[in-house]
Amino acid sequence: MPDNKMPGTGAKGTITVNMQPVGRRVEISPGMSLLEAAQSAGVELASLCGGLGVCDSCKIRLVRGELTPPTIEEQSLFYPEQLEAGFRLACQAVPLGDVKIDIPPESLTTPQRLQIEGQSAEVELAPAVVGADIKVEVPDIHDLRADTRRIRDALIASGHLAGGGALRFSPVVLTQLSKQVRDLNWSMRVARHGDEVVSILPIDTAMVGLAVDVGTTKLAAYLVDLTTGDTLVKSGAMNPQIAFGEDVVSRIAYCQNHTDGRRTLQRRLIEALNELLSEMCRMARLERDQILDAVVVGNTAMHHLFAGLPVNQLGHAPYVPAVSEALDIPARELGLELAPGAYVHLPPNIAGYVGADHVAMDLATGAWNAQRTTLALDIGTNTEITLNHNGRLLCCSCASGPAFEGAHIRDGMRAAPGAIERVQIVDSGEGAKIRLQTIGDQPAVGICGSGILDAIAAMLQAGVLDRRGALVGSHALVRWRDGLHEFVLVPAGETGHGKDMLITRRDVNEIQLAKGAIRAGIETLLAEAGIQSQDVQDFIVAGAFGTYISIHSAIQVGMFPALPESRFRQVGNAAGAGARQMLVSVQQRQIAQEIAARLEYIELSSHPDFTNEFSHRLFFSDFKKEGLTAEHAENTEKIRQKKK
Amino acid sequence: MPDNKMPGTGAKGTITVNMQPVGRRVEISPGMSLLEAAQSAGVELASLCGGLGVCDSCKIRLVRGELTPPTIEEQSLFYPEQLEAGFRLACQAVPLGDVKIDIPPESLTTPQRLQIEGQSAEVELAPAVVGADIKVEVPDIHDLRADTRRIRDALIASGHLAGGGALRFSPVVLTQLSKQVRDLNWSMRVARHGDEVVSILPIDTAMVGLAVDVGTTKLAAYLVDLTTGDTLVKSGAMNPQIAFGEDVVSRIAYCQNHTDGRRTLQRRLIEALNELLSEMCRMARLERDQILDAVVVGNTAMHHLFAGLPVNQLGHAPYVPAVSEALDIPARELGLELAPGAYVHLPPNIAGYVGADHVAMDLATGAWNAQRTTLALDIGTNTEITLNHNGRLLCCSCASGPAFEGAHIRDGMRAAPGAIERVQIVDSGEGAKIRLQTIGDQPAVGICGSGILDAIAAMLQAGVLDRRGALVGSHALVRWRDGLHEFVLVPAGETGHGKDMLITRRDVNEIQLAKGAIRAGIETLLAEAGIQSQDVQDFIVAGAFGTYISIHSAIQVGMFPALPESRFRQVGNAAGAGARQMLVSVQQRQIAQEIAARLEYIELSSHPDFTNEFSHRLFFSDFKKEGLTAEHAENTEKIRQKKK
Repeated sequence: MPDNKMPGTGAKGTITVNMQPVGRRVEISPGMSLLEAAQSAGVELASLCGGLGVCDSCKIRLVRGELTPPTIEEQSLFYPEQLEAGFRLACQAVPLGDVKIDIPPESLTTPQRLQIEGQSAEVELAPAVVGADIKVEVPDIHDLRADTRRIRDALIASGHLAGGGALRFSPVVLTQLSKQVRDLNWSMRVARHGDEVVSILPIDTAMVGLAVDVGTTKLAAYLVDLTTGDTLVKSGAMNPQIAFGEDVVSRIAYCQNHTDGRRTLQRRLIEALNELLSEMCRMARLERDQILDAVVVGNTAMHHLFAGLPVNQLGHAPYVPAVSEALDIPARELGLELAPGAYVHLPPNIAGYVGADHVAMDLATGAWNAQRTTLALDIGTNTEITLNHNGRLLCCSCASGPAFEGAHIRDGMRAAPGAIERVQIVDSGEGAKIRLQTIGDQPAVGICGSGILDAIAAMLQAGVLDRRGALVGSHALVRWRDGLHEFVLVPAGETGHGKDMLITRRDVNEIQLAKGAIRAGIETLLAEAGIQSQDVQDFIVAGAFGTYISIHSAIQVGMFPALPESRFRQVGNAAGAGARQMLVSVQQRQIAQEIAARLEYIELSSHPDFTNEFSHRLFFSDFKKEGLTAEHAENTEKIRQKKK
Repeated sequence: MPDNKMPGTGAKGTITVNMQPVGRRVEISPGMSLLEAAQSAGVELASLCGGLGVCDSCKIRLVRGELTPPTIEEQSLFYPEQLEAGFRLACQAVPLGDVKIDIPPESLTTPQRLQIEGQSAEVELAPAVVGADIKVEVPDIHDLRADTRRIRDALIASGHLAGGGALRFSPVVLTQLSKQVRDLNWSMRVARHGDEVVSILPIDTAMVGLAVDVGTTKLAAYLVDLTTGDTLVKSGAMNPQIAFGEDVVSRIAYCQNHTDGRRTLQRRLIEALNELLSEMCRMARLERDQILDAVVVGNTAMHHLFAGLPVNQLGHAPYVPAVSEALDIPARELGLELAPGAYVHLPPNIAGYVGADHVAMDLATGAWNAQRTTLALDIGTNTEITLNHNGRLLCCSCASGPAFEGAHIRDGMRAAPGAIERVQIVDSGEGAKIRLQTIGDQPAVGICGSGILDAIAAMLQAGVLDRRGALVGSHALVRWRDGLHEFVLVPAGETGHGKDMLITRRDVNEIQLAKGAIRAGIETLLAEAGIQSQDVQDFIVAGAFGTYISIHSAIQVGMFPALPESRFRQVGNAAGAGARQMLVSVQQRQIAQEIAARLEYIELSSHPDFTNEFSHRLFFSDFKKEGLTAEHAENTEKIRQKKK
């Protein structure tokens, strides 16, 4: 480091801001705020209030270095323990030297939100498919060994196979082998899955795997280099099965009511994946022959429909899956266009409504072997929850419905350009004003899950809603039309489609059902473990939707317990991350099977606690009271720990 | 046994004749010949000369009991050691009490010769697919195990699976499993191939396997009960690939010259097998779901074309197979319509022209572990030969051509009704007459392999042919027409199609090429082993054609060495028998792999001995001299053994 530079600053008097996990560094002039730093680096930090410090949309966390002290605005927005944990507003905080900051995913705006990168644990590479470059002896009249035999002998001679080691060839590889080895002039890379040769490639060809999270709504796919573990390209698409039913239950009903229904659903899904894969291969300049392995996760119904298994029995109690153990199915049997001999690994399912995607999430988040009491959930049409308390793993699934996907909401839409993703109500009484942020800063055309959650939370805080979810007619932002109260989110003149955007009592009810089910599920698991919400030390929120919600809002509406925000961790598509971990490591597949064996499934539909909790949790609680309770609990805990 | 009956005879003064291996017993009056006995029992013993004792077509061997002494006719037809071994003419021999006789396959006439039962060794049953009848616990709200899991648990509970034992489900079984187990009301027979469930059946369903010998010309198929080892039904068909080339070389050429050629050939073969299987299932009242396993053998080209492997490299030196090791391919990948999860086992190949069918033959005949010096061959378009001398296994393949299949012969045809199968020339000089026997005793329409071999042998003996294979113009049975000599086998008036049936010089040449190649192959192996033909103690002739030929004729034309006939054993379709052995026993599959590992392949095309022998063996030898040589050798051997 040069001597003439100020301590803690970069060369020439500039300051370096290192932004994680996006991995961007930028040099700024002293005095610039973190928001300005982010903007100058092209990092799209959210800024709902335009840098006034009155919303928390540009929230970041200081990892290293020093910032100006918290402003009055920050002191009023954050709890003391949040400030202590390093949470700040990027618009308010100015670096005093080189700093490293962490930008939570919900503070980033992204034009298209299908492509979600989940956090993946560090995994030692041990892919199921390995390659060996060999030079094979050429046949002549004195050496009549079969092609397979001379490949085997070359593998042994080059130390890639023990002398007595087993070696099989995928039947489909055999159909091309003799031509291939001659075209390659007897030098080749042999790709093996266990003891089976799944592809013959030119020497030094990159070996790639495919990880897919098949969501009920969205598909997230990743191409991963099997020799480095690097994600080469990621992409997303809608699950085309949506045309046959928005949620799992309606798709099962479709299969029950249509001959060949499940084959139709399977075919549509596979076609969509093949298209997605084509596009990804094009982007990464890869050939299909190089996609040598795949791991596919999804909920149990998606798992069954992907593998072509019957789903009728998932449609009625006791909701028994056809298969729970891990499967390895030749890709060609499914019609998935990978390398000829490639397999698709499907990790184990737990129950009819807790699938391999949840196992993958438990794996990727580390919830399965956490030392602290940890709750991990993935919010979707069904919300699956795992609670790890003293090493006991409890899990359940609650039917939270598609409201957070934008369905069943009057002006709901998926997270796409023009969707309102952040909502705030500022000032009060007659002067109350609504502030919005849309994806891509485009004129609003609808509201997505994180937006509706924000809206409900803001409406509660501003007194627009009462505890039962009714719109308060006397509030300045509520109007009376056609015999109903409605909350005008955006007047017609300001929307992208020229019509009023409203939130109605029905919309509020949908969110009440969703958040009530999720919270009741959480509480039921806690009760099973004999603990209370305050005992949860790590609260992990996974999934695309969970990544973008405001934890603040989720607590405010009562969906999450009022724990200190520092205990929450939003991890993105952890199911996809878990799939990638299993793609590059057979040990991770083994761990997934251990997780599946350890998970105790709690069936909520017949659980008395759940029914009670659900009816109770439909209402909204007094947020301020809950907030105090949380702080109180935090202090109680500290005192308790000191006593130990 | 009643006291009042004559010693050695049945009740009421009748005599019992027990005929093996056909397994028929008949009561006859004293004084009746064995031929009359066979006729009264409906056993179709050949009788070319009509019972005159001047041909050996009704040759049998006495196993137990007493017959009238050999007639003058028998003494002139058989060598003393043959008579000593019990060989007799059924038309001449009259039982003196209860007798048991063995009827060699070549002494039986059969209307249609595609269905060949090979002799199969006694094999301890250890099929790859085993069944377990279980009652599975029904799911309820307190028992949410997946269907696969509860089947596994039921297998463990019923002692069919060790607690930690592996269990997988074929993906295709999973696609139906949940519906099936509910339709079966949770009681079922689980069929497993190794640790993989390949079919779910009703309790007590018969479990059946398919064994197939895919010949270049003919398909022989057997349905075998896997729990008893019994052959339930056997059937045959022509190999439809004949339309694309009569022999292996022309089919390989077809594949080289046509895009998708090998896929066409594969598809046609599989279609034919599916049709054959349909018919067999109908006959045995079986469903496809019950056909749980298959073993398919064939020469290397048939093996490759069945499995969809490339054959181009089999078309030119050094004739290297794509694969030599044993394969297990899911039947569904081949399009073969067995039980959903069934596999097809393909035993190992040895070389480009020594395939799994030859390994199967070595297995079924016991040639692989014979204690005596044993030569075993299967005559076809290619003739594969194994020589076992002091435990060393040598093998080779000679291109004997399709003459014995009736191809390239002016009036040749396959062994089908109307084909001449036996030929004899009686009397001599101007009075020389031809005696014939056709399959099914129908008017002659052509001549099949055993017939043409008999004809050439008879022509040699009668002086119609000289040693070089030329027709002797001065012979009464040879005529001169259109500048060529021809032998009129059947004049136009006596044939089924109203045209002369001839044997031409060209026909003779075809047989010279065939027999020359076979004999040269035999001699080359003997030379490799450092022994002479007289040292061969057991000479096993396998294959449909080999079963029906006259050993006498084969020796006479010089195709086989002039060993005593008692050393020859005609065993029928031994490849098919070996396939059936492997179908019912995984140990037999293991032995086949040991055989393949032990067989030393001798490439004849580059072998100097072969070229010399071949040009030498094209000519005919002096049969009588060879005969004396054989007798002499026999005596020499006896003396040698006494000296030891």
